[in-house]
Amino acid sequence: MGLVVQKYGGSSVADAEGIKRVAKRIVEAKKNGHQVVVVVSAMGDTTDELIDLAEQVSPMPAGREFDMLLTAGERISMALLAMAIKNLGHEAQSFTGSQAGVITDSVHNKARIIDVTPGRIRTALDEGNIAIVAGFQGVSADKKDITTLGRGGSDTTAVALAAALDAEVCEIYTDVDGVFTADPRVVKKAKKIDWISFEDMLELAASGSKVLLHRCVEYARRYNIPIHVRSSFSGLQGTWVSNEPTGDPKVEQAIISGVAHDTSEAKITVVGVPDKPGEAAAIFRAVADAEINIDMIVQNVSAASTGLTDISFTLPKAEGRKAIDALEKTKATIGFDSLRYDDQIGKISLVGAGMKTNPGVTADFFRALSDAGVNIELISTSEIRISVVTRADDVNEAVTAVHTAFGLDSDSDEAVVYGGTGR
Amino acid sequence: MGLVVQKYGGSSVADAEGIKRVAKRIVEAKKNGHQVVVVVSAMGDTTDELIDLAEQVSPMPAGREFDMLLTAGERISMALLAMAIKNLGHEAQSFTGSQAGVITDSVHNKARIIDVTPGRIRTALDEGNIAIVAGFQGVSADKKDITTLGRGGSDTTAVALAAALDAEVCEIYTDVDGVFTADPRVVKKAKKIDWISFEDMLELAASGSKVLLHRCVEYARRYNIPIHVRSSFSGLQGTWVSNEPTGDPKVEQAIISGVAHDTSEAKITVVGVPDKPGEAAAIFRAVADAEINIDMIVQNVSAASTGLTDISFTLPKAEGRKAIDALEKTKATIGFDSLRYDDQIGKISLVGAGMKTNPGVTADFFRALSDAGVNIELISTSEIRISVVTRADDVNEAVTAVHTAFGLDSDSDEAVVYGGTGR
Repeated sequence: MGLVVQKYGGSSVADAEGIKRVAKRIVEAKKNGHQVVVVVSAMGDTTDELIDLAEQVSPMPAGREFDMLLTAGERISMALLAMAIKNLGHEAQSFTGSQAGVITDSVHNKARIIDVTPGRIRTALDEGNIAIVAGFQGVSADKKDITTLGRGGSDTTAVALAAALDAEVCEIYTDVDGVFTADPRVVKKAKKIDWISFEDMLELAASGSKVLLHRCVEYARRYNIPIHVRSSFSGLQGTWVSNEPTGDPKVEQAIISGVAHDTSEAKITVVGVPDKPGEAAAIFRAVADAEINIDMIVQNVSAASTGLTDISFTLPKAEGRKAIDALEKTKATIGFDSLRYDDQIGKISLVGAGMKTNPGVTADFFRALSDAGVNIELISTSEIRISVVTRADDVNEAVTAVHTAFGLDSDSDEAVVYGGTGR
Repeated sequence: MGLVVQKYGGSSVADAEGIKRVAKRIVEAKKNGHQVVVVVSAMGDTTDELIDLAEQVSPMPAGREFDMLLTAGERISMALLAMAIKNLGHEAQSFTGSQAGVITDSVHNKARIIDVTPGRIRTALDEGNIAIVAGFQGVSADKKDITTLGRGGSDTTAVALAAALDAEVCEIYTDVDGVFTADPRVVKKAKKIDWISFEDMLELAASGSKVLLHRCVEYARRYNIPIHVRSSFSGLQGTWVSNEPTGDPKVEQAIISGVAHDTSEAKITVVGVPDKPGEAAAIFRAVADAEINIDMIVQNVSAASTGLTDISFTLPKAEGRKAIDALEKTKATIGFDSLRYDDQIGKISLVGAGMKTNPGVTADFFRALSDAGVNIELISTSEIRISVVTRADDVNEAVTAVHTAFGLDSDSDEAVVYGGTGR
């Protein structure tokens, strides 16, 4: 029996009852002979309440102080969880990110982990303790200031600790049963995935699936730490994310892992760009300098008569204003006609390693969308993913249609099998 | 202009509005040319809410985890206060007790400060920042665990930092205007004291005055740090506590500083103790071994006929059960008859350095009580204090009568002046 890292999200520890329930589960793992390290998020809405307080005090809270504020949330939940475990007769000690050796860079509010030195955790484990660690937070290497890792940061803390401690598995406990073939709130017949490869999970995370964040999966893949995503409210097996199928030997890699969607993006079209070398580079340099992450990029074929072309790209809605401002400033130098901003778009992505060897997938994807009457505005592909942009209003219908077309529905006998015929 | 340490209690920073009001006051001090270090408590009822959560999770929360939990409160208030100051255009940085160099022993929940190494605070000040420090907390020297200083700990943090930083003054901001000649909730005509010596303040604090805690005043006296207790809601001068009167040259030391009362104690009487050497020692050894702090002790004159005597002492009501249990266990060895427990007592104390040289004070004190019809049960004196125990029901009347008798009432022309005649 080796070491397991368990991570519990805010909904699992929303109140005293939740904390006591989670404590019991942790003690079970300990009783089964594991060394147990637990990463915990802030209780329920604590973080939102703290953000709200900050906004009442200052419209633009400073990064350093904002991080100091937010990390109070995990401090509360981890101390309570340690108390609850001790109350069950087991030894537990809680550690802040800093005490646990989570060393980050100095970018407040979205710091990156640059090292993990879990000496105190090792000592606590060797002394027979369950170690409880505050998720989402660390300490900066240079200034020794408290930092936070940004959205979903507790998952990253858990995987990083699992890697540093050479854990058998990193269990991510949440309020859903695992990773599904589509968002179950949209697709009623979505199925839980028993096993998915790191690569497919990365594409799903990049395409709008919210169960695991991209950064966390990336970290787990780099250090080859199996992740087990499961519910803290049931005893069921969840979804394993790893290099090779683990556990149940029946599990095989599906051709299509799932259908993800995302309505958090907007589209900017730069209209009337002179079709000559360096123009696209100038546009995306301006956007990058404003520290905006863009997703899909499409350049239309230039109209021969005018020598002008349009360039479209998608980006998080929250950064739309900043991108428009950055581009407007360079209008004269780049020499485009105008900018169009559209935040009524949605993205649907089909993800699966089987795509590489099954050329029919793309055609079937487009046919399913077409049959559902959904118009495609942009297309982008990777080796194991196809994404399209549609009207936001069409997204739910599109996801459901594609999910059915690829045999992913829970009442479907089996997934579509490709044999090189293109179906 | 030198360095000032300001401390704001929970009622001063109860909500976002309070934090913004306090931020303005801090910025004023900075604008006046001071270097400013601010010690802040948790917002309003935060600490009570955290204690409540802990009790829901575990009936006997472990000290280490309890301290980790409680310190989240100051983390929130200090970060918000720093944000609010920055929002007013001034630089501020917040520091946990550990970051501020508050080093303590390892006694969780009531740790003692053993060293202050404020290197990071000095650096922050030298860089032009206002430094905000979490009150009530430190880090243990041996295990590097988070500790808390117990009730009123933020005042001690402020005085300790003021001493380590060689501050001009330690300003304690609270929700009252200063230290009064009696508790204004009981004595309507109580007056604010402009200046009081460390010695008199120590006696008042030991006798039930709650504005400043004994430990904080003791620390300030040892390092000779003047304390200015004042309201965070008004701009008024409060009460100066120091070795020598400061500021207003008219201020002279009063003969009587004030009348304190305390109804938080109980009285235990050990009945029928054999009147021979070593009996009292055995009784108080048993109580001390149970880690109970006792206050007044009185041994009655032994009745010659029986050779037995009674010994009474007072102690905090909260520790009554523990003391009775400890004494019952030693009943056989010590050989007393029975124990009497009485929690319906009150203590009234008259405090003033003038007592030393004015022999009439004690007589006047007893006459005032007698005139008010108050019966005295126990008496205890120090060089500058007389305390009596009465029925709890008589306390308010007794305090008011004594306050009037010694000319302390706000409508009195002047305080009673002793000239060796005993009035």
